[in-house]
Amino acid sequence: MKGTGFNELADLAQKWGFRGVGLWRDVLEDLDLAAASRRLKHSGLRVSSVCRGGMFPQPDDQSRRRRFDDNRAAVDQAHFLDADCLYLVCGPPNADLTGARQQIHDGILELEPYARQAGVRLAVEPFHPMMASTRSAITSIGEANDLVEKIASDMVGVGIDSYHVWWDVRMHEEIRRAARHLFSVQLADWVTPIQGELSTRGMPGEGCIDLQGFVTVCTEVGYRGLVEVEVLSSRWWSETPDDAIRGAVKGLLSI
Amino acid sequence: MKGTGFNELADLAQKWGFRGVGLWRDVLEDLDLAAASRRLKHSGLRVSSVCRGGMFPQPDDQSRRRRFDDNRAAVDQAHFLDADCLYLVCGPPNADLTGARQQIHDGILELEPYARQAGVRLAVEPFHPMMASTRSAITSIGEANDLVEKIASDMVGVGIDSYHVWWDVRMHEEIRRAARHLFSVQLADWVTPIQGELSTRGMPGEGCIDLQGFVTVCTEVGYRGLVEVEVLSSRWWSETPDDAIRGAVKGLLSI
Repeated sequence: MKGTGFNELADLAQKWGFRGVGLWRDVLEDLDLAAASRRLKHSGLRVSSVCRGGMFPQPDDQSRRRRFDDNRAAVDQAHFLDADCLYLVCGPPNADLTGARQQIHDGILELEPYARQAGVRLAVEPFHPMMASTRSAITSIGEANDLVEKIASDMVGVGIDSYHVWWDVRMHEEIRRAARHLFSVQLADWVTPIQGELSTRGMPGEGCIDLQGFVTVCTEVGYRGLVEVEVLSSRWWSETPDDAIRGAVKGLLSI
Repeated sequence: MKGTGFNELADLAQKWGFRGVGLWRDVLEDLDLAAASRRLKHSGLRVSSVCRGGMFPQPDDQSRRRRFDDNRAAVDQAHFLDADCLYLVCGPPNADLTGARQQIHDGILELEPYARQAGVRLAVEPFHPMMASTRSAITSIGEANDLVEKIASDMVGVGIDSYHVWWDVRMHEEIRRAARHLFSVQLADWVTPIQGELSTRGMPGEGCIDLQGFVTVCTEVGYRGLVEVEVLSSRWWSETPDDAIRGAVKGLLSI
């Protein structure tokens, strides 16, 4: 819920019976992480993921170095909060997809030892192809699996959001392939028309994705982590946080 | 160019030195096809494609039958105009992608003998995944290739538009695989933000796609047909037809 602070978020999660929270890094800015960590332990809430590290493709060495530092800071935050994983939104902005893909591979390889030392799992998130020029050159679970298998570290896996991958004829097959390295599962529904490729998502049940089938196949391949509802939506962002979480609960019960 | 009649289109194509025109079926409505055909022969213009047949997934037998009749009418028009191919926008609207894919396969198989008799080649168009719920369940060249190879007819191939396929890590590989059954090539560029998934396209050079590389790989695998510029764009539609074609020419020279 955009603009909602950590404490309010934790309150809402507890009130509605969620077992964890996914945290974006803007929520963590200026937050007393030690106090937040105590609050989480006290309430029994897990941090299902921290979003995000990544954006590996950069135009020059200096910006790549800055990005690496920022990614290490993200690992530190995820470590401090004992998060189940750190999501990697791999990037463009580089529009040369081939070059971007190489930099993504190299960037993850460079970050991996630091993440390993911190005990933080990195989840490569395949993004919907409509975000290939703005968010990530990794546009399918298959491509994410290829990357993860090439890096071959038990600290690097995939995190999948129904919204990004539902269209793929190979989705079930690639989820099965991910299996042991499936670190995170998120739900959002597909609604049209698209008004801005980032934030036109629907709550579960508002769109056309077979979310029950999606969760089932994830469970069948052994996923036992939490399932997040992550709905980037200009429409839902205009609601109060309480109404938004009410919408999420209603949606989850409907699928 | 939306709203532009056949004769104006042919005039513009001749004036600007294009060797053919791609025709949408709304342009063919109420048109004297015999006169149009004479005009084309006289001017040396080819019809590079007719758009569109398809939309195979339907909720019941009656609407499937109606759709089949309409697809035969599209084949007739393509035959009459001696078009290089008829594009198949395969459909949803059925949101059950698995069911839609089966109906697409069955629908093409049913239409094939009629197209063969008419000498009209059918081009399966993979659509951008952001149109999976509205236009087509066939969302990649690989998927289109699988379908075409399964149907195994020299009258059924693929037609590819850079806009729909540019994001795909397997694009070059799958174009090479298409090779002999690559019936049509179209250009449009990728621009963001997306405002409506159908009509936010850019003229060549306005976006981030490596169109030169795209055309090169198509040529390398043996494609010798015309290359269409097909830019569905609310912005360009608001220009005059002459300005739009000027934009296309400028774009083609820039890539």
